Amino acid sequence: MDLRYISKENNQGISVKIKDIVIGNGDFTIIAGPCSVESSEMILSTAQHVKSKGAAILRGGAFKPRTSPYAFQGLKEEGLDMLKAASQNENIPVVSEVMDPRDVAVIYDYVDMFQIGSRNMQNFSLLKEVGRTDKPILLKRGMAATIEDFLMAAEYIAAEGNDRIVLCERGIRTFENITRNTLDLAAVPILKKLSKLPVIVDPSHGTGIRELVLPMSLAALAVGADGVIVEVHPDPACALSDAEQSLSFEQFETFAEKINRLKHYFEDMRKGSY
Amino acid sequence: MDLRYISKENNQGISVKIKDIVIGNGDFTIIAGPCSVESSEMILSTAQHVKSKGAAILRGGAFKPRTSPYAFQGLKEEGLDMLKAASQNENIPVVSEVMDPRDVAVIYDYVDMFQIGSRNMQNFSLLKEVGRTDKPILLKRGMAATIEDFLMAAEYIAAEGNDRIVLCERGIRTFENITRNTLDLAAVPILKKLSKLPVIVDPSHGTGIRELVLPMSLAALAVGADGVIVEVHPDPACALSDAEQSLSFEQFETFAEKINRLKHYFEDMRKGSY
Amino acid sequence: MDLRYISKENNQGISVKIKDIVIGNGDFTIIAGPCSVESSEMILSTAQHVKSKGAAILRGGAFKPRTSPYAFQGLKEEGLDMLKAASQNENIPVVSEVMDPRDVAVIYDYVDMFQIGSRNMQNFSLLKEVGRTDKPILLKRGMAATIEDFLMAAEYIAAEGNDRIVLCERGIRTFENITRNTLDLAAVPILKKLSKLPVIVDPSHGTGIRELVLPMSLAALAVGADGVIVEVHPDPACALSDAEQSLSFEQFETFAEKINRLKHYFEDMRKGSY
Amino acid sequence: MDLRYISKENNQGISVKIKDIVIGNGDFTIIAGPCSVESSEMILSTAQHVKSKGAAILRGGAFKPRTSPYAFQGLKEEGLDMLKAASQNENIPVVSEVMDPRDVAVIYDYVDMFQIGSRNMQNFSLLKEVGRTDKPILLKRGMAATIEDFLMAAEYIAAEGNDRIVLCERGIRTFENITRNTLDLAAVPILKKLSKLPVIVDPSHGTGIRELVLPMSLAALAVGADGVIVEVHPDPACALSDAEQSLSFEQFETFAEKINRLKHYFEDMRKGSY
Repeated sequence: MDLRYISKENNQGISVKIKDIVIGNGDFTIIAGPCSVESSEMILSTAQHVKSKGAAILRGGAFKPRTSPYAFQGLKEEGLDMLKAASQNENIPVVSEVMDPRDVAVIYDYVDMFQIGSRNMQNFSLLKEVGRTDKPILLKRGMAATIEDFLMAAEYIAAEGNDRIVLCERGIRTFENITRNTLDLAAVPILKKLSKLPVIVDPSHGTGIRELVLPMSLAALAVGADGVIVEVHPDPACALSDAEQSLSFEQFETFAEKINRLKHYFEDMRKGSY
Repeated sequence: MDLRYISKENNQGISVKIKDIVIGNGDFTIIAGPCSVESSEMILSTAQHVKSKGAAILRGGAFKPRTSPYAFQGLKEEGLDMLKAASQNENIPVVSEVMDPRDVAVIYDYVDMFQIGSRNMQNFSLLKEVGRTDKPILLKRGMAATIEDFLMAAEYIAAEGNDRIVLCERGIRTFENITRNTLDLAAVPILKKLSKLPVIVDPSHGTGIRELVLPMSLAALAVGADGVIVEVHPDPACALSDAEQSLSFEQFETFAEKINRLKHYFEDMRKGSY
Repeated sequence: MDLRYISKENNQGISVKIKDIVIGNGDFTIIAGPCSVESSEMILSTAQHVKSKGAAILRGGAFKPRTSPYAFQGLKEEGLDMLKAASQNENIPVVSEVMDPRDVAVIYDYVDMFQIGSRNMQNFSLLKEVGRTDKPILLKRGMAATIEDFLMAAEYIAAEGNDRIVLCERGIRTFENITRNTLDLAAVPILKKLSKLPVIVDPSHGTGIRELVLPMSLAALAVGADGVIVEVHPDPACALSDAEQSLSFEQFETFAEKINRLKHYFEDMRKGSY
Repeated sequence: MDLRYISKENNQGISVKIKDIVIGNGDFTIIAGPCSVESSEMILSTAQHVKSKGAAILRGGAFKPRTSPYAFQGLKEEGLDMLKAASQNENIPVVSEVMDPRDVAVIYDYVDMFQIGSRNMQNFSLLKEVGRTDKPILLKRGMAATIEDFLMAAEYIAAEGNDRIVLCERGIRTFENITRNTLDLAAVPILKKLSKLPVIVDPSHGTGIRELVLPMSLAALAVGADGVIVEVHPDPACALSDAEQSLSFEQFETFAEKINRLKHYFEDMRKGSY
């Protein structure tokens, strides 16, 4: 694997700074928020709630890659406005997806971190475009991407000058269909061994089932991930997208509490190596 | 499946015209050419050869989506110039891949058909952009795309006003790794039943093995596909990409001969139904 | 791949004789019959019909491997009695599945060919047991078996002294779920290149969809398979198993006619090589 | 899913007793030992080591299902003798694989728990045979088995009268090939929700990579599994099978220590619910 900019040197990983939040320094970072920004009020209340319970970064989709052209496509710039307002109000950095290289400059002003979604993991023009910015990148693994494909996609970004990349394992497509995808947790230690980049896990898309979000997040923490990104919605039953996998505020509170307890346990354990 | 523009009406498929070539009218169309345009001479000699042996459309990559940023990325505009010259010289229409919505306008002047590659099958910005042009589109199935995902991607294009779309089955990712992908020929009759669009097959990428290109193309013809797209190179051993799966000129001659013989057989048989 | 008994020698395949029927001599053999033997009358009428329309071998399950213990498990010895009577009445050889090494001796007297099903492809005790008999074996590929696994399973049989094995590609498990399995037709020429054994295709299990049986069988013929095994039932809607994928008598008649026409075409073509 | 004997009643799981060891009572059980019993000395020293470091059950293969008939097939009865001697010497129960229904009676006298391997998960004769015994069963998930297939296989055993079954997630076949299989940890909470049976994880086969055994075991513990089964060998480099994935004695010591520490943490946490 020809990794020139993201390979591990001297067995040292790097950390990625998103405003004042650091991913990859041994901490376990929770990124939380709705699949889509649906209104000012919902993103604001979600930001407030997740921040108060321990999320470090707010997620929220404004440009939504949907399988069908007739599904809700996101509020676009309007959604970004709402997201930014929530971010400023709650003093929490935000990550949002960019799907088109032409949108990079516009979205730049609204977000603290660009997300590249699974469907665009090998959208090389987009990778290069965000690679030319100075913002951190959350790069999700493609549904059929091998670990090598995934790392080479990160290399595309880094080769343009931006190695502030956080990798995100979010499940691959397999024959099993009780879960939306098959979350490949073994990828986490492999990615961390092969590259210097931090690795987080998305148990919401990785399973598609609300009640699996907590156990799979605990597993992600145990396996050595640097964080998780989870979907939270004020009223999951009414969410415009990903209703089945979003946590309610109450569920997120329990979630964050259990994660934080295990995190403290691992803070000691991680000082050793495995 | 919410197909508004590409569903089958009155059990009738449509045909797609690429200059004077028609795909989907009961004929079996051969699209052939190199993975990448490497020089004026090679694309010209290839165009000449494949046209003389029965290819109806010339393929040739100028913008190449490569897993590694350090692999040959194509000759870009320069390659398109060469491709267009070959096209005009041999009076054969050309198809070439577009990877970036910003390139659509530029590439428009060089090609007779846009190709959307597997990695961009859910690059929705790109789909919409080509959907706003008046050029036919060759849409390849993504490596992890279900048949439904694939059809919804075509719907994205058609919803913008352009339903001149040819679907291309090119193999999906499975555990089997003797072949590069697993060519899903059953998808052909299913796609043709669910939508009105013509369907072709790519046995070169679908198998990754030169000697399987002919048998799998014969199978594609037998299963009811409207054509194939195959890689041909003057000197496969020295190809800058896809060396293992490209046919030599001599192999293409045998290929075209055998395909044409079976095609004549099926011209009668197809008048019936199965 | 350590193939000692089934590798190809001098580029020559072998043929396998089942009574007076030969698979692998350049002909394309049709094996047909119901998923399960359900009654004397139904297996007799099916035998009569498929034989008269061109099937060379009758299939019929008596010991049925079903996912659920509460699904119909087959008529067992009683079913074998019925199957043998139909075989004798219509003078057509029969193949039936054996699932348990202890049943080999009993089933031996009823069938002309043992079938090893997908779920038992790596039931090594069973493979060895049939390998010690002098009856031909129809070995189906496992749902997660690589081509190498498949050939090694055949080698288990052959190493016991019985190399009269016909391989059967019947689809592998993938993420695509419109079809029951993904029929991997590229496996046919690969298997025939790597081993001397004949290779047939099962489009009924390979797709799970009745109307795909003919097109995929034509494709199997085109790709170089030595035959197909298809499910036929007097009244598919009432079949106790595999109702969705069984052909009616009328459909089988059309099927056999179209296969035979293409077969004649390929008899010439096959004399060449591809 | 028609689960009559293994479904969850009143939201209560069951525990399975193997001699004096209980799996499924909230504890996290470590089963450890070599892939194959290779000699009296090696199995004895391994038994001694793993027991002293915290393994509750000894594993050791005597009848080995190998892809190739020319690979080491296990020491069979001789191996079982050695295994039993080690078991008695160290006072540790043993589990070993049975591959043939005819061997059940013989193996019965040597083992405290029967293992049904992945390749035999749908060997229904074998499932029924062990279902008629009074020994606990370790049932491994098949490589292409959906969660439903897996549970129905357990139901086959239970329907014969024996519901002392421990399910084992051991990885499924996917396109990713850095790891030997893709360990599907999300299956653990799903299996535990749908059935009353305890669920353990096999990170050795699930990843095929020694250094992933610990992190994936910690993840298995975090996700709610009732235990793990891991391969340990006195000299992994010289193991006759599965050399790449076996832990050395020293590695197992570290492994058990880290597992035990996290187990104590979860003992409290598990009293709550997630």
